[in-house]
Amino acid sequence: MPEYVHGGDVYSYTARFGGAPVDLSANINPYGIPERVKQAMLDAIDACTQYPDPFCRTARQEIGAAEGIDPDRIYCGSGAADVLDRLAAVLRPKTALLLAPTFAEYERTLEGAQIRFHTLRSDEGFAVTKRILQDITPEMDAVYLCNPNNPTGRTIAPVLLQKIAARCAQAGARLMVDECFLDFVQGGKTLAPYLDAFPSLVLLRAYTKMYAVPGVRFGWCMTADAALIEGLYRAGQPWNVSVIAQACAVACAQEHGFAQESTVRIAGERAYLTEQLAVRGLRVCPGEANFLLFRAQDADLQEKLARRGILIRDCANYRGLTRGYYRTAVKTRKESDALLAALDEIQKEES
Amino acid sequence: MPEYVHGGDVYSYTARFGGAPVDLSANINPYGIPERVKQAMLDAIDACTQYPDPFCRTARQEIGAAEGIDPDRIYCGSGAADVLDRLAAVLRPKTALLLAPTFAEYERTLEGAQIRFHTLRSDEGFAVTKRILQDITPEMDAVYLCNPNNPTGRTIAPVLLQKIAARCAQAGARLMVDECFLDFVQGGKTLAPYLDAFPSLVLLRAYTKMYAVPGVRFGWCMTADAALIEGLYRAGQPWNVSVIAQACAVACAQEHGFAQESTVRIAGERAYLTEQLAVRGLRVCPGEANFLLFRAQDADLQEKLARRGILIRDCANYRGLTRGYYRTAVKTRKESDALLAALDEIQKEES
Repeated sequence: MPEYVHGGDVYSYTARFGGAPVDLSANINPYGIPERVKQAMLDAIDACTQYPDPFCRTARQEIGAAEGIDPDRIYCGSGAADVLDRLAAVLRPKTALLLAPTFAEYERTLEGAQIRFHTLRSDEGFAVTKRILQDITPEMDAVYLCNPNNPTGRTIAPVLLQKIAARCAQAGARLMVDECFLDFVQGGKTLAPYLDAFPSLVLLRAYTKMYAVPGVRFGWCMTADAALIEGLYRAGQPWNVSVIAQACAVACAQEHGFAQESTVRIAGERAYLTEQLAVRGLRVCPGEANFLLFRAQDADLQEKLARRGILIRDCANYRGLTRGYYRTAVKTRKESDALLAALDEIQKEES
Repeated sequence: MPEYVHGGDVYSYTARFGGAPVDLSANINPYGIPERVKQAMLDAIDACTQYPDPFCRTARQEIGAAEGIDPDRIYCGSGAADVLDRLAAVLRPKTALLLAPTFAEYERTLEGAQIRFHTLRSDEGFAVTKRILQDITPEMDAVYLCNPNNPTGRTIAPVLLQKIAARCAQAGARLMVDECFLDFVQGGKTLAPYLDAFPSLVLLRAYTKMYAVPGVRFGWCMTADAALIEGLYRAGQPWNVSVIAQACAVACAQEHGFAQESTVRIAGERAYLTEQLAVRGLRVCPGEANFLLFRAQDADLQEKLARRGILIRDCANYRGLTRGYYRTAVKTRKESDALLAALDEIQKEES
């Protein structure tokens, strides 16, 4: 089996230590699955005696209504990762620009492409700045951004994003913007209103982080490029989105208030956790999402915390980061305090 | 949106006619989801707050125990169709041999390959005979068989299958045998005992037809080729099999008796439906699975039945078949009688 490079691998934890960890390695809303979403999933089980709708008609209609987007501009997949696989299969970029660090799946899907990396600088807090514009050259076929970026949690300023989109259009490069965690950013601004202005723009989205259902596999993209949408349908099996995932998406699209309320609560917890980590001498990147990147002196912190029942994400395997970088989800006060107590325990033992 | 070429599209039916049809266009066990399987799926919904296990450890262990196969020889996907996509992505055969007619997904996944077709003959009842051995030439990289074949329902004689496997090994061709409907064949013989003898053999399987859960998306393959298994993991996103699908697979692997009992009941219904279709002047292919291929004079039978609330599969778009070929699932007596009554009604109106 290949090495698993992501967070959220509670299964390996359980195989090794037994029991369930406090999982801060995957960035999932700690306020759980909304009741109506859960009920929709329960109700959908009986409908699993049929193949799923290959065109996700009801899900696209509801998402379209919620987003103010024509449903024909939406393509649904089995998680945003499935959409990324299909985008790469259809677009087959020869040369692509990626951030470093960023979510590792973009690079995985681009096997065979020449990849250039725009390296974010720790002395700029890993922010995307106008420096990136120079790297969007005419030979670029595709540019992948993540807003907010994973693992930094930094957002890209809307004015800069528009400049990037214009530059990509000029260079003939497809621009993929992953907005899967944008829900968690207070006042987060989607590029959805610019889909018409930039037909080469593709926005990636997911409900599964906000509505706490990453296990169900649902994600989608939005673009004004009808030929690309058609290509995505053809790029793999027609039944990729399960009946339960489609029902789940419909219910998520119809939720009101839950996302905003969660975002406000998580912002409070993020402020608390940022401060408490800083107090302990850890350098915290000023992220705006439901996770925080921080740097420690200790290169073995992930392992030490795991032995204490707490799973965080070791970011040493992110391109552009080194040993000593970690990412923790922002969950409830209880989970933050469990992390902080374990950090104190480790510090005490070692001093 | 691309044209949808398969059966089971009850969604288009409902959009067009309203209500739900008697669906005989998808070949799903009419005796429904076993209670323990349904319960396992219900129980798994709370676990969807986590990403799925990317290595499907528990599911592979239980399938391995049920099949008498080392779990490391099993790769699980989001339906057999996902496994087919990954097999094509890893193996990238330059030249492949496919049956005609057969399940259309093999050809879809082989875009870019040179495909030769072994045409099954109506005067041989669409049986696979030793004629196929001549077509397995040294330039073949891959051979795809379907046992029982879809849409004919014909099985391949075990002795011939072994000869084919030996010939493929000799020719250096990978042999994929789709056994997704083999559960429904009385006395059906899997090639699983030959995995060691033929490391280039890949067997495709699914629980979702027998346990009536095609909407949940789960399928797997088995092979002794460890490098291929490793490649399949790398050929797409790591979280392709949902938490619910994995729980469902575990429960299916632990079911006893349900499959055998269903197969016996369906065999009885198949005999009845075969006879009743023949009585009505339709030429029925002697299939052994839970579906029947038949030929009618009427090229518009699918449409006429749809208007009467009954969905069958028009097989005119199968390579190797012509207009006038149809496939119907074998379900309960009630569903068979609904089909027969509608056929009688059509005949009456037109005489």
